[in-house]
Amino acid sequence: MIGRKLVERLARDGAVSGQAIGELTLHDVVKQPLDVRFEANSAVSDLSSPGAAEKLLAGRPDLIFHLAAVVSGEAEADFDKGYRVNLDGTRLLFEAIRKVGGDYKPRVVFASSIAVFGAPFPQAIDDEFLHAPLTSYGTQKAIGELLLADYSRRGLLDGIGIRLPTICVRPGRPNKAASGFFSGIIREPLSGQEALLPVPQTVRHWFASPRAAVGFLLHAAALAGEALGARRNLTMPGVCATVGEQIAALRKVAGDQAAKLIRPEPDPAIMRIVGGWPQNFDPKRALSLGFRADASFEEIIRIHIEDELQKTPAPRTGRA
Amino acid sequence: MIGRKLVERLARDGAVSGQAIGELTLHDVVKQPLDVRFEANSAVSDLSSPGAAEKLLAGRPDLIFHLAAVVSGEAEADFDKGYRVNLDGTRLLFEAIRKVGGDYKPRVVFASSIAVFGAPFPQAIDDEFLHAPLTSYGTQKAIGELLLADYSRRGLLDGIGIRLPTICVRPGRPNKAASGFFSGIIREPLSGQEALLPVPQTVRHWFASPRAAVGFLLHAAALAGEALGARRNLTMPGVCATVGEQIAALRKVAGDQAAKLIRPEPDPAIMRIVGGWPQNFDPKRALSLGFRADASFEEIIRIHIEDELQKTPAPRTGRA
Repeated sequence: MIGRKLVERLARDGAVSGQAIGELTLHDVVKQPLDVRFEANSAVSDLSSPGAAEKLLAGRPDLIFHLAAVVSGEAEADFDKGYRVNLDGTRLLFEAIRKVGGDYKPRVVFASSIAVFGAPFPQAIDDEFLHAPLTSYGTQKAIGELLLADYSRRGLLDGIGIRLPTICVRPGRPNKAASGFFSGIIREPLSGQEALLPVPQTVRHWFASPRAAVGFLLHAAALAGEALGARRNLTMPGVCATVGEQIAALRKVAGDQAAKLIRPEPDPAIMRIVGGWPQNFDPKRALSLGFRADASFEEIIRIHIEDELQKTPAPRTGRA
Repeated sequence: MIGRKLVERLARDGAVSGQAIGELTLHDVVKQPLDVRFEANSAVSDLSSPGAAEKLLAGRPDLIFHLAAVVSGEAEADFDKGYRVNLDGTRLLFEAIRKVGGDYKPRVVFASSIAVFGAPFPQAIDDEFLHAPLTSYGTQKAIGELLLADYSRRGLLDGIGIRLPTICVRPGRPNKAASGFFSGIIREPLSGQEALLPVPQTVRHWFASPRAAVGFLLHAAALAGEALGARRNLTMPGVCATVGEQIAALRKVAGDQAAKLIRPEPDPAIMRIVGGWPQNFDPKRALSLGFRADASFEEIIRIHIEDELQKTPAPRTGRA
């Protein structure tokens, strides 16, 4: 979803950090339609299969966004697939870059996740807090971060890893992810549909809009690597909000009739999972490097309305 | 070196955590002599070669000490070898255990390192400080820790990782490791030899004797996994001492004539490397779990004299 939105934004802008885009290749395991102004390719293969990464590097791209991943639930259900795609796929990409050799040293923007953190947490997670993931997905992302930093330190690539907040409001249909309700309680009422709330209103979490997430990726693409030093992975800023604050924002934007469509239906299994998730961060480094979060949860809702319901194009100048 | 001392200790004790040792296999890339009272095998292979780990598990050992590693300097000089042995070798061992399946769930004690930490540091590194290694070796150990924790969380093995302090006094001849002088300035004067000191006396570091390190491994082998929760990797306690304090301890144990054999010869390259190393820790979790460091740097020197120079056998009851 973020990858598609990133490509839409690149197509609108035609440039990244002031440099015109000469050529773009979108790689996925399934065919993706592309409609852009510059030379664009759409490649279909599995990055963890032999030779796939080498083929992608044939045009020696200056900039690589590596967003590919088997998601949390699937990586937990299918041990082999999670490690093969999320760990081996990432490592094969970095190795393929290393093996090009010479002075080839592309900027690699790696989408990591706040799933690298595991409870117990401090009141706000700062930039020096331990990675102790409680899922295989979080483990694989934490390993990807370590590899990115080591390959960067050795001058084999120029990497930046960004830990994305939970993306909200996710467009599309409800899904079964444990985090799905964070988007559902906004998205469904805005479309006049009922939404179930499986947790108490006191639950606190960390959010970014899809538009902000795309802004983070583009800002990371443009950062000077030297500004980062050896620590190449950053927690992105976000909006910290309780479910109660989410609902209050919905009420403010869309009225009481929207908020009334949220029906509490406590689910102990989801409560237990969400209880192990980070709630709040103190992302000083990312802020000092110019990454900017959405202004408020209200703004997150308005962005969803603009970008998904009204389809008003987002402004050319990103927020991050 | 620690592996050899661990086997000597196991041979003396004949038991681990109250259980008699039925069979022991020592595995290394070079043939190691064994002289023990129980059934013992010495296996020679490269753990990162296909099938090697499976062969080692044929007897379904209850307890596995995984100390194998390409050391820091070599992993930095030979990128491929470091990742192959330290990352792939460790992962192949864990995978081989997983593939045995059924209710096979051995205790795996993994020797990690304080090299998982990288500067800048707080005044003392606590149990929640970030892993941001500044070497490929530290990166590979940090990845091993993440894998150990995830495989343990999933019930595939019962792992404990321990981050060893710098081992001091290392027996044997001087080597070219950047850390070599920490041992050299004690070992050489005790044998009437001159030792060079490449750094100022204010340099501070974190030490354990070889005997304490063996004690840590045995204590880890005996710990109840449930006591650890999801965070399966622990910084070991150590003795924090400046080079000046090391020298004062040497003077106290062996007199001024020994201390006078230390000749300052500043080496900017070594100063720069050592400047990036951790100096001090606050290892609360390990202490609460019963791991015990040497009492002082003086004791570290006396242990070297007992175990290496006088060859008095170490007491049967370990310190850890």
